Amino acid sequence: MHASDDDRLLALPLARTLFHEVARDLPVVDYHNHLDARALAEDRRFADLTELWVVADPYKHRAMRIAGVPEAEISGPAPARVKFDRWAATVPLTLGNPLHAWTSLELSRYFDFSLPLSSATADALWLHAAARLASPALSARGLVEQTRATCLCTSDLLLDDLSAHADLARSGWKVKVRPSLRGDDLLAVEAPGFPDFLDALARHAGAPLRDYDAFRAAVLHRLDEFDALGCRLADHALNDFAYLETDQAATASLFKRRLEGPLPAADQVRLRSGILHWLGVEYARRRWTLQLHLGAQRRTSSRLRRLAGPFGGYAGLGNPTDIPALCALLDDLELAGGLPRTILFSLNPTLLPALATLTGSYAADGVPGLVQAGPAWWFNDHDLGIRQHLDALSRHGLLSTFVGMTTDSRSLLSLARHEYFRRILCQWLAEQAAAGHFPADPAELSALVRAVCHDNAASQLRLAS
Amino acid sequence: MHASDDDRLLALPLARTLFHEVARDLPVVDYHNHLDARALAEDRRFADLTELWVVADPYKHRAMRIAGVPEAEISGPAPARVKFDRWAATVPLTLGNPLHAWTSLELSRYFDFSLPLSSATADALWLHAAARLASPALSARGLVEQTRATCLCTSDLLLDDLSAHADLARSGWKVKVRPSLRGDDLLAVEAPGFPDFLDALARHAGAPLRDYDAFRAAVLHRLDEFDALGCRLADHALNDFAYLETDQAATASLFKRRLEGPLPAADQVRLRSGILHWLGVEYARRRWTLQLHLGAQRRTSSRLRRLAGPFGGYAGLGNPTDIPALCALLDDLELAGGLPRTILFSLNPTLLPALATLTGSYAADGVPGLVQAGPAWWFNDHDLGIRQHLDALSRHGLLSTFVGMTTDSRSLLSLARHEYFRRILCQWLAEQAAAGHFPADPAELSALVRAVCHDNAASQLRLAS
Amino acid sequence: MHASDDDRLLALPLARTLFHEVARDLPVVDYHNHLDARALAEDRRFADLTELWVVADPYKHRAMRIAGVPEAEISGPAPARVKFDRWAATVPLTLGNPLHAWTSLELSRYFDFSLPLSSATADALWLHAAARLASPALSARGLVEQTRATCLCTSDLLLDDLSAHADLARSGWKVKVRPSLRGDDLLAVEAPGFPDFLDALARHAGAPLRDYDAFRAAVLHRLDEFDALGCRLADHALNDFAYLETDQAATASLFKRRLEGPLPAADQVRLRSGILHWLGVEYARRRWTLQLHLGAQRRTSSRLRRLAGPFGGYAGLGNPTDIPALCALLDDLELAGGLPRTILFSLNPTLLPALATLTGSYAADGVPGLVQAGPAWWFNDHDLGIRQHLDALSRHGLLSTFVGMTTDSRSLLSLARHEYFRRILCQWLAEQAAAGHFPADPAELSALVRAVCHDNAASQLRLAS
Repeated sequence: MHASDDDRLLALPLARTLFHEVARDLPVVDYHNHLDARALAEDRRFADLTELWVVADPYKHRAMRIAGVPEAEISGPAPARVKFDRWAATVPLTLGNPLHAWTSLELSRYFDFSLPLSSATADALWLHAAARLASPALSARGLVEQTRATCLCTSDLLLDDLSAHADLARSGWKVKVRPSLRGDDLLAVEAPGFPDFLDALARHAGAPLRDYDAFRAAVLHRLDEFDALGCRLADHALNDFAYLETDQAATASLFKRRLEGPLPAADQVRLRSGILHWLGVEYARRRWTLQLHLGAQRRTSSRLRRLAGPFGGYAGLGNPTDIPALCALLDDLELAGGLPRTILFSLNPTLLPALATLTGSYAADGVPGLVQAGPAWWFNDHDLGIRQHLDALSRHGLLSTFVGMTTDSRSLLSLARHEYFRRILCQWLAEQAAAGHFPADPAELSALVRAVCHDNAASQLRLAS
Repeated sequence: MHASDDDRLLALPLARTLFHEVARDLPVVDYHNHLDARALAEDRRFADLTELWVVADPYKHRAMRIAGVPEAEISGPAPARVKFDRWAATVPLTLGNPLHAWTSLELSRYFDFSLPLSSATADALWLHAAARLASPALSARGLVEQTRATCLCTSDLLLDDLSAHADLARSGWKVKVRPSLRGDDLLAVEAPGFPDFLDALARHAGAPLRDYDAFRAAVLHRLDEFDALGCRLADHALNDFAYLETDQAATASLFKRRLEGPLPAADQVRLRSGILHWLGVEYARRRWTLQLHLGAQRRTSSRLRRLAGPFGGYAGLGNPTDIPALCALLDDLELAGGLPRTILFSLNPTLLPALATLTGSYAADGVPGLVQAGPAWWFNDHDLGIRQHLDALSRHGLLSTFVGMTTDSRSLLSLARHEYFRRILCQWLAEQAAAGHFPADPAELSALVRAVCHDNAASQLRLAS
Repeated sequence: MHASDDDRLLALPLARTLFHEVARDLPVVDYHNHLDARALAEDRRFADLTELWVVADPYKHRAMRIAGVPEAEISGPAPARVKFDRWAATVPLTLGNPLHAWTSLELSRYFDFSLPLSSATADALWLHAAARLASPALSARGLVEQTRATCLCTSDLLLDDLSAHADLARSGWKVKVRPSLRGDDLLAVEAPGFPDFLDALARHAGAPLRDYDAFRAAVLHRLDEFDALGCRLADHALNDFAYLETDQAATASLFKRRLEGPLPAADQVRLRSGILHWLGVEYARRRWTLQLHLGAQRRTSSRLRRLAGPFGGYAGLGNPTDIPALCALLDDLELAGGLPRTILFSLNPTLLPALATLTGSYAADGVPGLVQAGPAWWFNDHDLGIRQHLDALSRHGLLSTFVGMTTDSRSLLSLARHEYFRRILCQWLAEQAAAGHFPADPAELSALVRAVCHDNAASQLRLAS
């Protein structure tokens, strides 16, 4: 079923109008994801459905684990077809989970396959897909083009190879693929591997990093390289966020001590705080957006970490982030004249009203939505999570300034979730209008839909519209 | 459109019945607000819509900031008409925010102006209002009378001038205007200004405050003055609430040390705890209600604090309050025989189920609803926040004992929010009845509506009904 | 009205189909409650409605306190009829509280009494019930049989007398009544009574407990006795849960020190952690389920504790549990090869999304739903709490693996709450289907209803189905 004939999740007539006449065909700007730029540069083809759809999707792995599927058949050495079959058998058990909705949507959009996936239909889908995987529509680029994407921002560590982005820029492909900085290495001062990171940075800079000034110079040089390839955002995963005001002189001294060996815990926080503060000012200077990914609990099962690697899908929700610490960071940046556009993501949804309210606590003349609660993130990216986000943002802030959906996904097929988001937004708006909280005027709501589904994200990235 | 013809927010027939036949015409008891008693004593007139409606409303300022309006045109020196125009231009961007609903309601009720406000209608409204601001209906008292208010409790610091309240009491105005004690100065032992406050208190008492006994005597004298003017409530803003059991002897000793200079942090908590405990017992003895305003994050942007003053609308939600500390305070008061009626407000809504449950954890023979979760406060005072509060209170406590809505507002026009609350309550009840959680019997529900919209608040204030 | 004619809470046709054709007649497995096995062994009769229905129900006591009923007429020496009358007078004030719904359901199912209870109908009900209390249908066993229960798991302290369970096992009664271990004594190392508990354990073991090995041997012996009577679950109430990794050698040393006197707070946490870790491994070895009851605030009013006893209904919601600590416990158990099936209950509902997500953070090959967020617990066991639980579990985990409802109640009549749960589940599913989040296919939904209402619980207890 094509999107144009499909009223899924659109129970109210006004929702259908808003989706089919406004939201559906708007271009997609996916400003934060974990797509593989090399796969796009090479326009990779996929050998089978497991490679394309199952192997690299930790959401599916989680569901299979909950269903009791043996780990060997999830992340282990089992053959591709076995893994696919286990996933197919798990799908009926995911009723109510967003995986169920996404599965149906992705099979419908990319494979024109409308049967519900289960053990009974697994064979049919496997063969159906095999016959199509060679087609240009299912290459890496073909998949992206089908979703009307105009800009994708991948997530790249400071020293990651950006040659694929350079190749893409030269290729003339109509979809912009930009790096965005995943800054975690820069703040991982407590990690045993931090000295190795500094060594690598020194090699990249072509000069030893004997002090904080040299470190900053090397980082700035690399930020310039990101910027030259179109980078417009940075992000930091702050799992147990703490912040202590630390001026740059103190940071330099802590950095020096870190070069000599591990620091006590409180000094780690100070050093991280000082570096983050400095980075924030630099991001603001470049007009980059700062994304903070807060409140994930990444330390859960050591066994699964060993078996499935660091991104194996076994993370959870962490404690709610300390709000005074967050405010102190934002205030220090503002006082330094360097508060960039900031998008706050919390994996723990109890923080959402606080983040949505912070939208009104920091401001800059002429900049709508300077500080934002980002879209429903990761485990919250389901219909109820999206609705909770829309509820919080509209009641505590201005929905009209919301930067909108991004997938944060490793899977090309996840771009279909922009459609999922848009359907939920349109249905939510229609329900709000029916209850009298919004006007039932399609014209007035259309402006809002356009802003949230496309224009605000495009404007943030300074894309020509 | 008059309230009698207006079905906004009332989607179900039962909701309309409950609102138009029961809730709409009940008197308003606004037991906690920040209205200016002097403006009421003088029956002030307003020069223009900006003075009446924009200048002193931090909610509007927040929204304008989120929309990117320059601060100079919000809290700065821009002319009144410019500020009004900026607000008018912001209104369409507030779709979904309670400001949108309040704006429409306030223009409708007080100005009989039914066009949606925007840049396109700003001029019409400005002129329309100008022609009416001289009418008695739009004086300070006229605005209050239009809302059927019978009692307003303002919020007054211990040493605030209460002469306006005395003037009002003598004036014979049918609306009771009572002071209520904002006790923050009394607990601000960490503030550099605490000694100045003590000096002022000593001057008021006509005797030096050489020790805790003298302090308490001076405070008691002032509490008597509040009481004589009809004060029935006190409130304390406890942003990072901590509590350590501290007997009065220890408190006296800590107080003595504070007279000599700043205390270490833990001793500040002890001194605050001891004073609060003593005040609670005094409130109970006077049959005053204790209001605790918990979990605001008042330290956000230093820049906005400097530009817009301490109540400039840039506060946010703080961390959830520590529940064991709250329980320890209430328990200590009860053990001392001095647990007053207590209304707990949390700006962080995640605390709501806990507060609603505490309703059943402390009790007094013959006193319904001794401890209560207060109405949806400040940033939570929108349709969803009110519903969440009704959900929590009904499921975890007894909705029938709820003391009901209060505006906590600085704006006279905000009294229209009682209508907003009542509409939402009636619609919520009708939905609950449709789902089978309440009887669909208007008579049974009417008793509940009357209790929540008026009778419980009047009873708490010991108003003759 | 019999359940078969009764559509309460079932607004949608699909909900009615699912309830009446699938859910209604499924057997009840109540895997965690506080029923009195002796009352069941003796098939106790009840003198009056107060004894059966009011005296031992702390939920009702809470409501009466909130309504202002004097404590003497709640938990004190007032006559049975007075207590009943006070409860009857309180019922109309509970509109919206689950007590209102439960009252109506229990009177309908067990007494065929369909009038709304109030002061006006109190006399009628009292007489109506008096005439029936002698009938076999209203004996302890008769009440259980009416609910189609097949298995009840009571909650028993380590040294509680299990002879009633043995008598029941021998009696041939068709309903299985099994003990389950309430392990609180084992972890109460900070309690002044801990040495007395150890003495009693030593007497039971017939040998002194001179060290940790002797303690463990005595406990293991008792676990075997529980197991022999069909115990399949343990539970621990962890109010302020903290966890510090502690190996068994260190635990032994801490235990030895505890025999000599009280430990400092951090060592209490270590000793508790070490014992809990050891117990978890033992539970896993026996294929018992570990239930963790998290986040209750049991210290509220000292006055009510003194008047109404330790389970008097004045508890509240505690702070949200520390998630890293919880993850560390589960990880340590998994690393030791001893992570049992685990059901996590949080009284503070803000923890729910985190608990539901943990379902995917730990796994065991071939075990669906190894770690679960348990059903809406205690103060959350109302329609909205159940819906929030279904929302969280379906969106963050797999609803199809959910172990389902249990009453956790002291009252035989509370078994009717399985019907309440099933009605809410069916209505929730029908609403989800109407919104497009679930298929509207009764067959597909029926499998889910059966799994959640019965099969998963039966399977966990290894009941022959």
